Amino acid sequence: MLHSHSLARLSSRASVLRLARRAYTQDVGSNIQLSQLRISKTDNPRTPPPAKNLVFGQTFTDHMLSVAWTSAKGWEAPHIHPYGPLSIDPSCTVFHYAQTSFEGLKAYRDENGKVTLFRPDMNMSRLNRSAARIALPNFDGDAVVELIKKLVALDAHWIPQLKGHSLYIRPTIIGTQRALGVAPPNAALLFVICSPVGPYYKGGFKPVSLLATSEYVRAGPGGTGGYKLGANYAPCVVPQVQAAKSGYDQNLWLLGEDHRLTEVGTMNLFVALKHENGGVELVTPPLEDVILPGITRDSILSLARGHASGAQPISTLPSKLIVSERHITMKEVKAAAESNRLLEVFGAGTAAVVCSVKNIGYNGEDIAVPTGPDGLGPITKSILDEITGRQLGIIPSDWSVEVPPF
Amino acid sequence: MLHSHSLARLSSRASVLRLARRAYTQDVGSNIQLSQLRISKTDNPRTPPPAKNLVFGQTFTDHMLSVAWTSAKGWEAPHIHPYGPLSIDPSCTVFHYAQTSFEGLKAYRDENGKVTLFRPDMNMSRLNRSAARIALPNFDGDAVVELIKKLVALDAHWIPQLKGHSLYIRPTIIGTQRALGVAPPNAALLFVICSPVGPYYKGGFKPVSLLATSEYVRAGPGGTGGYKLGANYAPCVVPQVQAAKSGYDQNLWLLGEDHRLTEVGTMNLFVALKHENGGVELVTPPLEDVILPGITRDSILSLARGHASGAQPISTLPSKLIVSERHITMKEVKAAAESNRLLEVFGAGTAAVVCSVKNIGYNGEDIAVPTGPDGLGPITKSILDEITGRQLGIIPSDWSVEVPPF
Repeated sequence: MLHSHSLARLSSRASVLRLARRAYTQDVGSNIQLSQLRISKTDNPRTPPPAKNLVFGQTFTDHMLSVAWTSAKGWEAPHIHPYGPLSIDPSCTVFHYAQTSFEGLKAYRDENGKVTLFRPDMNMSRLNRSAARIALPNFDGDAVVELIKKLVALDAHWIPQLKGHSLYIRPTIIGTQRALGVAPPNAALLFVICSPVGPYYKGGFKPVSLLATSEYVRAGPGGTGGYKLGANYAPCVVPQVQAAKSGYDQNLWLLGEDHRLTEVGTMNLFVALKHENGGVELVTPPLEDVILPGITRDSILSLARGHASGAQPISTLPSKLIVSERHITMKEVKAAAESNRLLEVFGAGTAAVVCSVKNIGYNGEDIAVPTGPDGLGPITKSILDEITGRQLGIIPSDWSVEVPPF
Repeated sequence: MLHSHSLARLSSRASVLRLARRAYTQDVGSNIQLSQLRISKTDNPRTPPPAKNLVFGQTFTDHMLSVAWTSAKGWEAPHIHPYGPLSIDPSCTVFHYAQTSFEGLKAYRDENGKVTLFRPDMNMSRLNRSAARIALPNFDGDAVVELIKKLVALDAHWIPQLKGHSLYIRPTIIGTQRALGVAPPNAALLFVICSPVGPYYKGGFKPVSLLATSEYVRAGPGGTGGYKLGANYAPCVVPQVQAAKSGYDQNLWLLGEDHRLTEVGTMNLFVALKHENGGVELVTPPLEDVILPGITRDSILSLARGHASGAQPISTLPSKLIVSERHITMKEVKAAAESNRLLEVFGAGTAAVVCSVKNIGYNGEDIAVPTGPDGLGPITKSILDEITGRQLGIIPSDWSVEVPPF
């Protein structure tokens, strides 16, 4: 485990360094103090709905966490309080200038009832990097992980008992300055809400179809695609609707005249190719401006590299595996498909872990992508098992962080 | 006047057509009905602060306008009510996915006390185009102009009497669906707030210095730079802070390997060059993906073309004027400066109307830009006088729309 863990650390550190160039640090003032946490329990606890009725992101638990910040006083005392509407002045910068950044992670309940989070430190460091990119204040990520543990523990009965279910956790930071003006805000709010969710794949794995999109660009060089900003998401809705109208499930985002593949919907992208050495190459685009440094992406790279180096072999992965962070173009994907060297394509993200692709619509034709008989190719399935095994405590791992009972 | 007006119409229509390609129309349901307007006046009217103390966007009037929309019922009855915080669920899409678009226009009070708006129909059509780009519902722009007139009339005593002052009006539309999910929202809110503002130039015109920025890109091809979305603004704050730290007032946004000039801060850009025919060429980048279709930009082009064609000469503009919507690169600007053919550079937008540029920092050196002795070059000054003349009713114009008293 240690080796896998330190590989992941190295990988994350490299990303941080690469991204730090653009960071901006507000003078944060006093930081978030776990010891100042105030808890106001609801007087009207609700009954969680039946797990089978859950739709992603539509049900929220009884409580939420709020931590306010002002440039004058720094971070104020954290507060866990009943879930409810925010009272925000109509002049606040979040409404006008999209001063918002968010994260998504999950709390899992294992077979013994133990509740865990998966690599929450990664979410906190990314939220700090994203916040700095739009001049929102930074914060003590370790303190917020502890606060999230308190919140999850308080609402732990909202985590469905059913297999494959979990509690989706959404930390968000917004600019709340009560004045119009494109400038670092003098006030901000960090809040966390939790939503019980069912499995991404209900009734078996369903590979998705992608429409390769070059008219709309998710993120360009010098833009904000490498940060988890609200600003990256609103512009993707219309392309998604148009892909659906054309009969495809998701957009495959291309970039540049050579139509490099970048991301899939709101997920990172992996492509498995037959290599000329007889092995398999697992390719994902490198962390440059346009690629979100996904935590599932980082975990996959860490596991695959641990296997490829022989340090931590995974029996279900190909014995000869090459792991590449490199550009890959539609021309290469098409040629690989035509010569039967295209093995698997999958998206990777917190919601689904992995999501198999069955075909890519490109320039008016469909490129077929192999998938296994159960809708998952062997590499995709291996990755899924390895990551969910660590999330659910089946495979012991430092990545899994226990939430003590309330 | 008519000719100038129809030129502007043509110019706007061309923009609309060019931008319509990407639009997406929600099924809006019932539209906004002016006849359903409900007015709840404040019980606690405030006293407007002394005009000399006003800081842009920090003071708001007694009332605001709200119009709610749901996919189930369409637009609900408009409501003018006391200014106050919005109560918004923490799961709402505006907080997570930057589902927000806004406009800025001004109400002016002329010497006879008459209150007017400047081309408000242009703001409404742009807000509709922007909303469609991020799957927010469209609305009857004419109805909203009438609602804005009612709001401005009710709070007309907030328009400062001092010369150069005005009432800044901020229509905003946000996604208010109470569920996480990157999809067209099932609820939205259109609201309008008003802020009394002083003149952009206090104590005389101060030309600004620009830092030409290629590391950060305001908007790339296939992105949303041509729409007035919140998403375009948050990412500009850090580059602006960095420009200020380097001793410059604003960013000059470049694009591409050839360093094309695109915009200045949050304004459109104009460059005046000596032409080889002995006249003057007034250049602004063409309305492609990356350029916001500014209303001041459109007004300047309309006036300059009316002059250049001879249809409506302006005595203070050069007799031989060529008006160009074309790309212009830093190489060309630098060469023009070196051969004394760079005449003027200015930004154009609602806040300042025009904003002269005195120098451009580029690749470690400063390119000097001529400005007149009072801080405004002759073309910049002519444009400023022509537009403010129409805004303040000194020059009669169809662009000026009267707000009847309440």
